[in-house]
Amino acid sequence: PLRGKHDERSLVFADLTQEEYLQVQQYMLTQKDLNISINQITKPSQNFLFLIDLSLPKKAEALSYLDGKGSKPRREATVVVFHGTKGYIKEYVVGPLPKPNTHRDVTLERYKTELPINARTVTIGEYALLFKFLTAEVFSKLGKLLKESFDVDKDKMLDIFEQMPRGVRSGDRKTWVSFFRDRSGLYIHPVGFEVLVNHESVKEQEWKVERLFYNGDYFDTVEQLRQKYEEGSVKKIVYKELPDYGSLKPRTKPLQIGPQLFYAEGKRFSVSKNHVLYLDWSFAFGLSSLTGMRVFDVRFKGERIIYELSVQEAMSVYGSLTPGMMLTKFLDSSIGIGRFAHELVRGVDCPHEATFVDTYRYIDAPGPIRYRNSICIFEHNMGQPLRRHFSDFFHNSYGGMVNSALVFRTITAIGNYDYMWDFIFYQTGSVEAKVHATGYISSSYLVEGNLKFGHQVADKVLGNIHTHFINFKVDLDVSGMKNVFQTKDMEYVNMTLPWMPDHHAKVPQLVEKQLKTEKEAALRHNTKTPRYLHIASNKTNRWGHQRSYRLQVYSFAGDHLPESEAEERSMSWARYKVAITKHKDLEQTSSSLYSQNNIWNPAVDFSKYIEDNESIDNEDLVAWVTAGFLHIPHAEDIPNTVTVGNGGGVLLRPHNYFDEDPSIHSADAVYFSPG
Amino acid sequence: PLRGKHDERSLVFADLTQEEYLQVQQYMLTQKDLNISINQITKPSQNFLFLIDLSLPKKAEALSYLDGKGSKPRREATVVVFHGTKGYIKEYVVGPLPKPNTHRDVTLERYKTELPINARTVTIGEYALLFKFLTAEVFSKLGKLLKESFDVDKDKMLDIFEQMPRGVRSGDRKTWVSFFRDRSGLYIHPVGFEVLVNHESVKEQEWKVERLFYNGDYFDTVEQLRQKYEEGSVKKIVYKELPDYGSLKPRTKPLQIGPQLFYAEGKRFSVSKNHVLYLDWSFAFGLSSLTGMRVFDVRFKGERIIYELSVQEAMSVYGSLTPGMMLTKFLDSSIGIGRFAHELVRGVDCPHEATFVDTYRYIDAPGPIRYRNSICIFEHNMGQPLRRHFSDFFHNSYGGMVNSALVFRTITAIGNYDYMWDFIFYQTGSVEAKVHATGYISSSYLVEGNLKFGHQVADKVLGNIHTHFINFKVDLDVSGMKNVFQTKDMEYVNMTLPWMPDHHAKVPQLVEKQLKTEKEAALRHNTKTPRYLHIASNKTNRWGHQRSYRLQVYSFAGDHLPESEAEERSMSWARYKVAITKHKDLEQTSSSLYSQNNIWNPAVDFSKYIEDNESIDNEDLVAWVTAGFLHIPHAEDIPNTVTVGNGGGVLLRPHNYFDEDPSIHSADAVYFSPG
Ligand SMILES: [Ca+2]
Ligand SMILES: [Ca+2]
Ligand SMILES: [Ca+2]
Ligand SMILES: [Ca+2]
Ligand SMILES: [Cu+2]
Ligand SMILES: [Cu+2]
Repeated sequence: PLRGKHDERSLVFADLTQEEYLQVQQYMLTQKDLNISINQITKPSQNFLFLIDLSLPKKAEALSYLDGKGSKPRREATVVVFHGTKGYIKEYVVGPLPKPNTHRDVTLERYKTELPINARTVTIGEYALLFKFLTAEVFSKLGKLLKESFDVDKDKMLDIFEQMPRGVRSGDRKTWVSFFRDRSGLYIHPVGFEVLVNHESVKEQEWKVERLFYNGDYFDTVEQLRQKYEEGSVKKIVYKELPDYGSLKPRTKPLQIGPQLFYAEGKRFSVSKNHVLYLDWSFAFGLSSLTGMRVFDVRFKGERIIYELSVQEAMSVYGSLTPGMMLTKFLDSSIGIGRFAHELVRGVDCPHEATFVDTYRYIDAPGPIRYRNSICIFEHNMGQPLRRHFSDFFHNSYGGMVNSALVFRTITAIGNYDYMWDFIFYQTGSVEAKVHATGYISSSYLVEGNLKFGHQVADKVLGNIHTHFINFKVDLDVSGMKNVFQTKDMEYVNMTLPWMPDHHAKVPQLVEKQLKTEKEAALRHNTKTPRYLHIASNKTNRWGHQRSYRLQVYSFAGDHLPESEAEERSMSWARYKVAITKHKDLEQTSSSLYSQNNIWNPAVDFSKYIEDNESIDNEDLVAWVTAGFLHIPHAEDIPNTVTVGNGGGVLLRPHNYFDEDPSIHSADAVYFSPG
Repeated sequence: PLRGKHDERSLVFADLTQEEYLQVQQYMLTQKDLNISINQITKPSQNFLFLIDLSLPKKAEALSYLDGKGSKPRREATVVVFHGTKGYIKEYVVGPLPKPNTHRDVTLERYKTELPINARTVTIGEYALLFKFLTAEVFSKLGKLLKESFDVDKDKMLDIFEQMPRGVRSGDRKTWVSFFRDRSGLYIHPVGFEVLVNHESVKEQEWKVERLFYNGDYFDTVEQLRQKYEEGSVKKIVYKELPDYGSLKPRTKPLQIGPQLFYAEGKRFSVSKNHVLYLDWSFAFGLSSLTGMRVFDVRFKGERIIYELSVQEAMSVYGSLTPGMMLTKFLDSSIGIGRFAHELVRGVDCPHEATFVDTYRYIDAPGPIRYRNSICIFEHNMGQPLRRHFSDFFHNSYGGMVNSALVFRTITAIGNYDYMWDFIFYQTGSVEAKVHATGYISSSYLVEGNLKFGHQVADKVLGNIHTHFINFKVDLDVSGMKNVFQTKDMEYVNMTLPWMPDHHAKVPQLVEKQLKTEKEAALRHNTKTPRYLHIASNKTNRWGHQRSYRLQVYSFAGDHLPESEAEERSMSWARYKVAITKHKDLEQTSSSLYSQNNIWNPAVDFSKYIEDNESIDNEDLVAWVTAGFLHIPHAEDIPNTVTVGNGGGVLLRPHNYFDEDPSIHSADAVYFSPG
């Protein structure tokens, strides 16, 4: 039996439907002056409709509607067009849906700057040209080398994996393309050959090879490499057959299946459209093609606790002696995190009993695409008590309850890595946002000196050291929108014992502070931070304490890129474990679609949100939380990194928000006493 | 179908059987010169057989036997006698079992010091006298006050909870006894009345009340309080009926049961005596009455990885304005952690399908006691993939496997708190040791000024700030006993781009170090510690890297007690996140039975293990790991602290120990590819 009712108002946060995508696409195509192509292999020199995604309503309007005070906000789409003919990118807002009839260029409003065309994501159209270019300019000219070194020819090619950023300064679009054996798990089969392609021009005729890297040496031109190879003046790589160590094929037959989950009396949660009910919880959800999964209007016993909880960015900085990876800094939302939320496998990615939801996306494609079973929702038995007490002093009794919680999950396979994203809803009123990494590591060819950057994990293969930083947006509204940012910690104070005045003792005391400006509340990594961080209300609970939610961050993050580096501005959110800003509709994300390819001059520099140092005293606050881990790859990362130990996240816990633990009212509670 | 066979040699680590306890007890009773009592309410002035527990074999002897090279080590028991008649405590080793015929005083060998009688744990015998004393000296004299303030009389009493340590210097045994309403969850019903009892003398006739605390004021004698109360010159507490907010009774009827675990094809693990087999894992286990659960000879695919993994100590330091809790520092192994491993409840504490094991203990009792179902062992579906990768670039395929792991659990309810202890065995070769806290917080009466030490959580009740520190002993033997301690981390180094020599970039590099002495390898809290800590072998894996296990510590610990405090020496293990020592049989534990009651001059001061600063280069190493969390109680700790977010632990992960991830050989692996 469900508590509460589904609420169709959650649809203000729903992703666009297939029909809506098509309507927007049609509308854009009828704007003849924009001259837009929707062809999958549109060239960079043309105008390409890259993305259609929900344009989120303004918070005030959404709340007013949700709370029954205002009308339904106008439903609109964001459309991103790569204007190859003009040399810029534009973002349009198109609406109202259904039946859009207007569009508005919002580029300047959103980013306060024009977006140069080279800030764009590499599209499938551009990749097609790049493959063509590599075939014509590299492969066709190095037949002997490729055959002898890698055993490839026109029937059997190498795979490619690109390194980013593409250059060293704004405007650059020079990509080190690394080559890998054509196998599953190609990412751990580097061959020691990399090519620097300059594809700055939108005209592919102007592209050129700027440098080549082969077995540790650099060459200025394909011709130079070819010549030196043929005259025998390069260290040659001699092809060698290798076992298929990247394969995920089982080496053993299934013997006896492991523990399974089952719902003896049916599901205790319900999913209707984009609205979820689970015991005392309700929330709306969506999946942005760019930033990934998100929930809105999260309520517990009917009271809104979180306006928005969303994935923002996944970033990695790599180290290597090989040229591509030496500079590699991946910013995944520029490629699209949600874009890669593929089908989840029952019994592995989610329990068999989970509810699976399809999603529809429109990104770098000629039309909307359906992604079957790309979200899963299930209640899980965590295998431990949520709380319990056994007593045989004075009173013999036992009370407890098992920890069953709702998991909302997507897994995004962005190239080599698979990130598993979980939002977990506990019966205590806590919500957890977690990420775990699995999939293949990125690797490089083991040239001399490269062992300073990682460990060897296979024949001639180095698993490269790298960081993982993940950013979550946590827009808690604790007992209303007006909140403060509070910290709590301990401190030993010297006390005289009242019953023994000549004796002193150091006694722990509670230290509470309120941080009142954005700069104060931007808590950097590697600084001593108070142990308890709270978004609090000035309203109090029954015992007179400010109602609050605590942010408990789980992270094993490595060092953030030094701010002296030009690329750092695109990832400035990663400076902070937690940063608190005053909510603004125009500060929707900590990163952007343009951060990767214009990394030196990003459309969104998160640190700017803080630079105006606004008051955060009794304002609508947003917490931006960064978790991550340092990854020093090791043999056990072959074939795949495992989830155990490779993750991070944040637990949002009620702290004097309630008057007592709400799980005391759970029907799962168990109690025994003698007689 | 099980892999491997059970091995009876694991019995060298088995707890004593009921028969063995009785044999040792009988043997001790026949030593007439020792004049020992086994009466449950033996008086402090008499000689009491407090404890019988397994005396662990020497590691060299055990290994030689386990590895088929030596004979079975002599089986022996440790016996602790509180010699009230002599004023000291003795530890004896009694053996061989079965049929012991000798005993040996090992006190000096083990502790290098005599053990004064007041270092002893308060026994049930002493408690009986304390209750009697309080009735005669306090209750019977304060009838009016007790009735008016607390509504108690001779038929309806207050409960007590003692604070520790018992005084401020060695030899002290002066206990602040705090009074609580007689309800389940008494710990959160303090009444504002505390009495300082001097019970230093083993003769209860010499005990006295030294001070009283009532509603914030101190009184020298019972008579003084009585008199001032009657003349109306004290602030009176007026009894008030309060709701039963500490009750764990469900407030709701069960509606629909939550998710359950089931083994569709039976258990994939087996427990025989004290030996467990699970897929590639095997291990022996035991439960010490003092330190709690432990496993030995942990092997993966037949190769020993861990010689011993054990709980060592659970410590808490409290802050308060009230006299008892002002000084409170609990060291649970002095009361007995394993002692309180009670029956686990199916479906709450462990899944229904778990295997439950009975244990037998002999501590502060007239004979051995059976604790039914006090250990549980189960395989759990963790609700997430252990690893997975989905690919639609170049190769369409999916490979993954669900994370099923074996959990070995006890829950120890030591007074107010319940600690849940988990050792988890993963299919990746990782082992995790975790602890979560639940049960009741300790609380104090809300006198003026007390809010500096916590938050109010109920009517006139303060939840007091405190730390939780937990110590684990991790005796990894990585590819043999001779190991080194290695650290790994990252560092940004400035590099010139070889293809662009005028351009520099900061690139992450791997930094490896070996710490060669115990002092170097004693890693303090609040110091910057390398992110990766490894117990490594000089033997290498296939790729030439030292085989190692990494210790990944999860902790939210508060500040450790300053070393200036006399009490700190008893808990000096808590100075360090991780400390590495050279293994010694005589350095079996980081704490001792005597740490609580002789806290100022402890029998075991862990820091001494490090003081001789021995070489840890290619030696048998032991890692002592401290995890914990700062607990600032809040309304949601009522009635019970919840496990979610309140824990810590350590994950032991293979790192270049294998040549690839061993889970690739799991029969749970799943693979799909198109066609
Ligand atoms: Ca701002
Ligand atoms: Ca907010
Ligand atoms: Ca030593
Ligand atoms: Ca060892
Ligand atoms: Cu990684
Ligand atoms: Cu606690």
